[in-house]
Amino acid sequence: MLRLNTVFPKGTTMLNAEIKSEILKDLVEIVETIVDEVKLNLSEEGISLKAVDPAHVAMVDLELNKDAFESYEANETELGINLSKIDQFLKLAGSGDIVSLEHIEDENRLVMEVDNITQKMPLLDTAGMTDPNVPQLDLPINLTLKGKHLLKGIKASQNISDHISITASPDGFEIISEEDEDMVRLALSEDELEELEAKEKVKSLFALDYFSNMIKCVGSDTPINMELGADYPVKMRFEFADGYGKVMYLLAPRIEST
Amino acid sequence: MLRLNTVFPKGTTMLNAEIKSEILKDLVEIVETIVDEVKLNLSEEGISLKAVDPAHVAMVDLELNKDAFESYEANETELGINLSKIDQFLKLAGSGDIVSLEHIEDENRLVMEVDNITQKMPLLDTAGMTDPNVPQLDLPINLTLKGKHLLKGIKASQNISDHISITASPDGFEIISEEDEDMVRLALSEDELEELEAKEKVKSLFALDYFSNMIKCVGSDTPINMELGADYPVKMRFEFADGYGKVMYLLAPRIEST
Amino acid sequence: MLRLNTVFPKGTTMLNAEIKSEILKDLVEIVETIVDEVKLNLSEEGISLKAVDPAHVAMVDLELNKDAFESYEANETELGINLSKIDQFLKLAGSGDIVSLEHIEDENRLVMEVDNITQKMPLLDTAGMTDPNVPQLDLPINLTLKGKHLLKGIKASQNISDHISITASPDGFEIISEEDEDMVRLALSEDELEELEAKEKVKSLFALDYFSNMIKCVGSDTPINMELGADYPVKMRFEFADGYGKVMYLLAPRIEST
Repeated sequence: MLRLNTVFPKGTTMLNAEIKSEILKDLVEIVETIVDEVKLNLSEEGISLKAVDPAHVAMVDLELNKDAFESYEANETELGINLSKIDQFLKLAGSGDIVSLEHIEDENRLVMEVDNITQKMPLLDTAGMTDPNVPQLDLPINLTLKGKHLLKGIKASQNISDHISITASPDGFEIISEEDEDMVRLALSEDELEELEAKEKVKSLFALDYFSNMIKCVGSDTPINMELGADYPVKMRFEFADGYGKVMYLLAPRIEST
Repeated sequence: MLRLNTVFPKGTTMLNAEIKSEILKDLVEIVETIVDEVKLNLSEEGISLKAVDPAHVAMVDLELNKDAFESYEANETELGINLSKIDQFLKLAGSGDIVSLEHIEDENRLVMEVDNITQKMPLLDTAGMTDPNVPQLDLPINLTLKGKHLLKGIKASQNISDHISITASPDGFEIISEEDEDMVRLALSEDELEELEAKEKVKSLFALDYFSNMIKCVGSDTPINMELGADYPVKMRFEFADGYGKVMYLLAPRIEST
Repeated sequence: MLRLNTVFPKGTTMLNAEIKSEILKDLVEIVETIVDEVKLNLSEEGISLKAVDPAHVAMVDLELNKDAFESYEANETELGINLSKIDQFLKLAGSGDIVSLEHIEDENRLVMEVDNITQKMPLLDTAGMTDPNVPQLDLPINLTLKGKHLLKGIKASQNISDHISITASPDGFEIISEEDEDMVRLALSEDELEELEAKEKVKSLFALDYFSNMIKCVGSDTPINMELGADYPVKMRFEFADGYGKVMYLLAPRIEST
């Protein structure tokens, strides 16, 4: 039987880690809304990744610190991963289960273990997988709202249209979805936001499907930070894994044809 | 932000009400089994509606008293409503949530609000929507049974055929569904009924799909009153909204070809 | 109204029994994975059946002792049964409900009753339904494992391929599913098995869909006995109905083409 916690020679490329299945599930769900295959960048400090969706509309930038793991040992390397295979494997894990991950370098496979189950998957060639550049944006509005408000606003919008407008101003925050004479609006006043820094009023349009995918794994009480401009991308940030994981999504606006 | 509880000039056509989302959900489900679009008749005393299904086989007659509402103000008027839009809106409400309803006359829209979500929907033209006449029927059998019995009898019938026969007599009540040599029967003796007034034995056939739709929102302990005749429509009555809502369904019989 | 517990003349062919709906559900599910129609052999001691699937790959041999019933009276006879009709009927029964079964000989129908619902189904002609011969196999490995391990191993294999290899040896038990470079393995050491009698190492391949169907109704803590050989059928045995029911499945191996 395979035993994962073998001693391995110092200095070789490797990963040998244990993590709660829930945290790995969150990571997979967060990234899967953008891409199916991704390059993980490993270092002694943890895991990070950057990816752009095939249509170049959305980007994810994620970091998971080694303190999110039950145990973690890694050298600097890159692993090309098929997320749906990890997702399937994680369906074998119950809540609270610890999953082991090991990179077997000479087989070029990732080995995952939970209970008495071992799954091996081939790694993808990372040669063509370059990290996208994260654009530096200086956006005039910075606000934080609770996950449940954003989730409800997006769910309501799906009744009406395939896109939304987001408006923010010193008075508050609004998501509006309109089609013919039907309209739905989430309105949060300054008091109903966790945080609001705004000197002007801005508005941008976004595709609803991207937005709803990006917030799928947000908890009802998770604070979500948004940076907004006028017809500019939205930058959305939230934490997972008890704060040891950090996600940043960037979503391009839809320009209203006039 | 829209605030619903504005003061409005006395005497103008309007609706301004608050209601538990569950009660509005029940109303929508009860009527949706008959029609998608309906004319609500508003008065100072509450809401009422009458509708016939497109095939003219089933009819619903519903009243919801103003005491079913948390607050209720309305003048005499008619509102043409798309029920599926209200249904979608109500999916945003949790159990126990209070929904606000307002008719904005100059926009000809209905405004619904729950939490921080506001939805506006255009009202339908009620010109072609006339209230059907409810036929006066003097049916020889009057009985009351518990919802759970009717629900189970109808569910069982779906295993066998697409129609049922209902028999009632001074001895009790029976639903039978037959096809070839397969048969299923719900039998309730006089003692197992809540109430039975019968001087003769009658039997009618009904389409099963109409029947099962009409009792979808019946609770397991809800008393259901039925009036029956021989090859005559069935009149079914039950209450919702703690008795402040009253429903009457009428379903035409299927005549057995001989 | 039909009353089942009538007195019937001694010596005539008949069945008159009451059983917990859960036990009848288990029986139906166990057999339905092999055949839709089956011949029940009744005797004073209980019910038994033997059946082979249409492709002649899997066989079931089941016994349910009369002590599994709340009440049981039967003479020696055969009943041809459509399992899906019983399955549908059982959906009307809640957990803990007692179901009555009666064979009405002159109608050639089986009558099932729960609460106020009676369902009658025609019996099938058993003339062409012969009991298959259960082959006598002397298999070198005999082991017992917990249901949850087998369930997880089979679920994991479904991520990878449509067949599995099962290996057993004095060291333990393994299920492996492989496709290209993807592999999943359930490994149980001798200590993790409930019981292991093995003098050699054997390996056989099996179709995954048959295997997963056969263990669908196995509980997480149910001990499952397996007998295995090298490229030989697997014999799987477990109990249900608090030990009053016994199942034996036999599944033919898939021979690896070389």
